[in-house]
Amino acid sequence: MVVTRGDVERAAARIGAHVRRTPVLQDTPELALKMEFMQHGGSFKARGAFNRMLAAGDLPEAGVIAASGGNHGVGVAYAARVLGVRAEIFVPEICAPVKVEGLRALGARVTQTGAIFAEAYEASAKRAAETGALEIHAYEHPDVVAGQGTAGLELLEQTGGVDTVLVAVGGGGFVAGVAAALDGAATVVAVEPALSPTLHDALANGGPVRVQVGGVAADALGASLVGKAAFDTVVAAGVRSVLVAEDAIVEARRHLWRTYRVATEHSGATAMAALTSGVYVPEPGERVAVFVCGANTDPSTLV
Amino acid sequence: MVVTRGDVERAAARIGAHVRRTPVLQDTPELALKMEFMQHGGSFKARGAFNRMLAAGDLPEAGVIAASGGNHGVGVAYAARVLGVRAEIFVPEICAPVKVEGLRALGARVTQTGAIFAEAYEASAKRAAETGALEIHAYEHPDVVAGQGTAGLELLEQTGGVDTVLVAVGGGGFVAGVAAALDGAATVVAVEPALSPTLHDALANGGPVRVQVGGVAADALGASLVGKAAFDTVVAAGVRSVLVAEDAIVEARRHLWRTYRVATEHSGATAMAALTSGVYVPEPGERVAVFVCGANTDPSTLV
Repeated sequence: MVVTRGDVERAAARIGAHVRRTPVLQDTPELALKMEFMQHGGSFKARGAFNRMLAAGDLPEAGVIAASGGNHGVGVAYAARVLGVRAEIFVPEICAPVKVEGLRALGARVTQTGAIFAEAYEASAKRAAETGALEIHAYEHPDVVAGQGTAGLELLEQTGGVDTVLVAVGGGGFVAGVAAALDGAATVVAVEPALSPTLHDALANGGPVRVQVGGVAADALGASLVGKAAFDTVVAAGVRSVLVAEDAIVEARRHLWRTYRVATEHSGATAMAALTSGVYVPEPGERVAVFVCGANTDPSTLV
Repeated sequence: MVVTRGDVERAAARIGAHVRRTPVLQDTPELALKMEFMQHGGSFKARGAFNRMLAAGDLPEAGVIAASGGNHGVGVAYAARVLGVRAEIFVPEICAPVKVEGLRALGARVTQTGAIFAEAYEASAKRAAETGALEIHAYEHPDVVAGQGTAGLELLEQTGGVDTVLVAVGGGGFVAGVAAALDGAATVVAVEPALSPTLHDALANGGPVRVQVGGVAADALGASLVGKAAFDTVVAAGVRSVLVAEDAIVEARRHLWRTYRVATEHSGATAMAALTSGVYVPEPGERVAVFVCGANTDPSTLV
């Protein structure tokens, strides 16, 4: 199924009171940076979490449960705390310690298990069947995709329009939501680490396909399988796919700090890496927007 | 002499092509954060530097010279590089290493001398007399004050108006410029470390008075004597003055990171410290804006 701009607009109406309208730095007429890492919980994930929970109506006594590389868990835990329900979060062993600490600080019950997201997810699904908690998948459910897309609506309003939007991709929820929000108003370029080419391989395959994931951004972008609704939406929108090397991500993260004093995690710098490494070269005068989408990082690793 | 809104508007026209319009996060209807640390050079200082240099017209062969706790030097070095002139910067021994490195990376000639800003300034004045370089004082000259104020004009446009603006104070250039820009449209609250009460003591004294300076933000806010034009402008605008404790500054810096993933230097968190420590308590519904004004910091010190 395809998530539509209408879905995203309804999501925006639903979650507007709970999420931050993150600011845009219009650095030059040709380059806008959407500072989505300033969202509650340090990434865009609170948007989808709120939309899923609010669209679900009455929530079970057991609350909500989610598996996450970290950021989605923080988004769910944050939304759960605001809405006054319990949250249980399963994270893989590679989850950054700063994210585990953040989850606990939000009052979530945290279980760290499995080498990658897919394994943590299996454990969470089993647990959900036991408790009856509402499962909030990180990128599979259309309500999550539509919620993430609200950042795209904001971008359009804040910039007055752009030609191209660069978005980092893990399981595809964010890029699909943004593509739905833009609804053809701009070209969307999906940027993935070459070591986690989940959407890239799915597009080549004509449908979601399980891939090996790894690299510096794997804790946030290391989804083995793109979401079905996300995939359908991405295909319908004609999203382009590019891959960036590990050193390009590391360098883009340093570039964001040196140039803008913006401290991100590696996933948060992955979209920028397509520009700074020359994997994506805009035409003269092309107006590009980059989502700087996550900053749940240990800032001491910047120097 | 008093810097006026007209002076700030002329400065904005002069420097507009060279500085970033830094974004505002409207966190709640009552709280706006102006992310001025995203300015070129990591603080607002490029604004005043560009205005002083562009207003001066033809610049001497020897270029420009400045004394600085660090940020002003970076602003001057950046502006000099963009405008194609030489820059020589004198910084005190307490200047953060990250700022010295930043200065050198911008191509400036750097001399580190003296325990505090005032001593580095004396050395720079002597050197300027020898070389004929244009002296760009960090906060004394009206063109520098007017340049810094352009951030205040942007704030008004971006927020659609606020009731109160919190600004950190070192030598008074930024707060005076902002007060001139606001021209009575909002109350300006000058926030200083209790250990560097330069404006606070000047207001109590009825004129600039030399004070002892120290504390965690001294490398940026440790000016011993408030500028005369800045003082006159602050008095004319009815700026209020408050002091914050050292631990309030440290905690506000952590708060900015935890809550917004914004990594600042201590001076950049000093205005926020007035809010988070309860030194300044807004009325219900009062719309407050906080300048987050500098991020030339070693991010590893955040954790």
